[in-house]
Amino acid sequence: MSAGRVFSPVLTPFGADLAPDAARLVAHCRWLLSQDAGLAVFGTTSEGNSLSVPEKIGLLEALARADIDLGRAMPGTGACALTDTVELTRRAVGLGCHGVLMLPPFYYKAVTDDGLYAYFSEVIQRIGDRRLRIYLYHIPPVSGVGLSLALVQRLRKDYPDSVAGMKDSGDDWNHTQAVLDAMAGSGFELYCGSEVILLASLQRGGAGCISATANVNPAAIVALCRRWREADAPLRQERLNALRAVFDKRPMVPALKAAIAHFREDVAWKSIRPPLLELPSSAIAGLLQDLRDLGFSMPVIGP
Amino acid sequence: MSAGRVFSPVLTPFGADLAPDAARLVAHCRWLLSQDAGLAVFGTTSEGNSLSVPEKIGLLEALARADIDLGRAMPGTGACALTDTVELTRRAVGLGCHGVLMLPPFYYKAVTDDGLYAYFSEVIQRIGDRRLRIYLYHIPPVSGVGLSLALVQRLRKDYPDSVAGMKDSGDDWNHTQAVLDAMAGSGFELYCGSEVILLASLQRGGAGCISATANVNPAAIVALCRRWREADAPLRQERLNALRAVFDKRPMVPALKAAIAHFREDVAWKSIRPPLLELPSSAIAGLLQDLRDLGFSMPVIGP
Repeated sequence: MSAGRVFSPVLTPFGADLAPDAARLVAHCRWLLSQDAGLAVFGTTSEGNSLSVPEKIGLLEALARADIDLGRAMPGTGACALTDTVELTRRAVGLGCHGVLMLPPFYYKAVTDDGLYAYFSEVIQRIGDRRLRIYLYHIPPVSGVGLSLALVQRLRKDYPDSVAGMKDSGDDWNHTQAVLDAMAGSGFELYCGSEVILLASLQRGGAGCISATANVNPAAIVALCRRWREADAPLRQERLNALRAVFDKRPMVPALKAAIAHFREDVAWKSIRPPLLELPSSAIAGLLQDLRDLGFSMPVIGP
Repeated sequence: MSAGRVFSPVLTPFGADLAPDAARLVAHCRWLLSQDAGLAVFGTTSEGNSLSVPEKIGLLEALARADIDLGRAMPGTGACALTDTVELTRRAVGLGCHGVLMLPPFYYKAVTDDGLYAYFSEVIQRIGDRRLRIYLYHIPPVSGVGLSLALVQRLRKDYPDSVAGMKDSGDDWNHTQAVLDAMAGSGFELYCGSEVILLASLQRGGAGCISATANVNPAAIVALCRRWREADAPLRQERLNALRAVFDKRPMVPALKAAIAHFREDVAWKSIRPPLLELPSSAIAGLLQDLRDLGFSMPVIGP
């Protein structure tokens, strides 16, 4: 069993006009890579679905122009419309991304496994590129559309080269365990969506994690991924949990943006697209107090 | 109290390659207008969120080129991304649409009323056009994001010219009644999302309905809207309910497409984008039997 890997669902900075701020995104990505965290841009924490397809393509191209290593990137490309998913995925593959994180189409609820299979199957065939590596994105508490073990197995069986793994944000350890037990042995990579189950999932064959708090705490999460078989792993896990709890108590995306704005001394980082809202000043004070209580801090970086 | 109005959430025909079929859409719209139903293209029944923004703009332009009266159209323009909603809404207003049907951003769940207010407010300000007439789209069973009475009132109060009404597909008569009682008096137009509550909502000040089955049964729904104060209105309502029940028992969009394919003798109408799937032949037989039992039929029209 090798070391697990960590991806950060990279927060998207916006300007005062709510346009994506490519320069700050580049700087944040550079810092994350320096911490050995990969770049899951356009995830849930990234407000990925609050960006249009052209905005996402523009940001990917800006990262490429800035020499950010997209071989370490796993952009979220799953949209409600097949044609959007295909367009963005094709662009991501063409730019050399390591893989793509793909939500199921999430407008219609209670759709069938056959319908979801048809969707992913159509996407894979339309892309028609051997470099395509899909990480299925299971996050039913947000998307409202889960991916059953049977569906994941069927896709993996029919498209073993394209269906590389999944991100599991299902908050259901039984499902996580079932997927790991059935599929990890064949090299299927399951990334847990919260570091709270990182050690347990690595012990069962997991590939690592893609976690919101890896935007602020990547080094400690990476360290557990590397050293999960050492004696102090449970202690590392406990420390990760303590920091995670501070953010889990609050609206996650605004709280992370407020923390970065504070530690980088860069108020622009607070900007967020509705329907999410900035954390009010009163709530920021409590957040910072909780972080101080844990002795947590982040380095100041540019811009 | 004037007669209510009926809009059909116009089904979107696709080619064998799953590209939108503008010619069949134009023909269907022309028929719906001839039945005195308005055109709520890009709604839930239209697979509106299974289409990209450029595809939707292309279809609106095709309708305009075909001289379909967009003054009778209320396209769905609400997307998860503010920028998508603004782009499509601006185009719809520019093309002279009567109004737009606007979902809240529906990826994040459990968002606050303040966050939704900020979103709609930002959209309205960015459009900045006095012709803008928004119909808020309340369909929590599908979108997962409902619109509270307090939110609707706040938006109507602050943007009385832009926030013209709502489509209510909440399946919650208490909420419908509360909105009607609080707001119908001021001219706020509530369209029910199913004709099953059409008479009850008209009696309480409702504006009409925007219903899936208006794709196949528009004339009868229009008739109840016109004659809801006549003695036979309850009988008309019962007949509408009987037909609605036939479709409510089945996956709505594929069943409607199968019915149109049958009555128009045009198998191409069955085509549907995943994650929705065509009704299997065995299920179509049962659907057609149920429709025959009701004596239901549709005229053959081109193309």
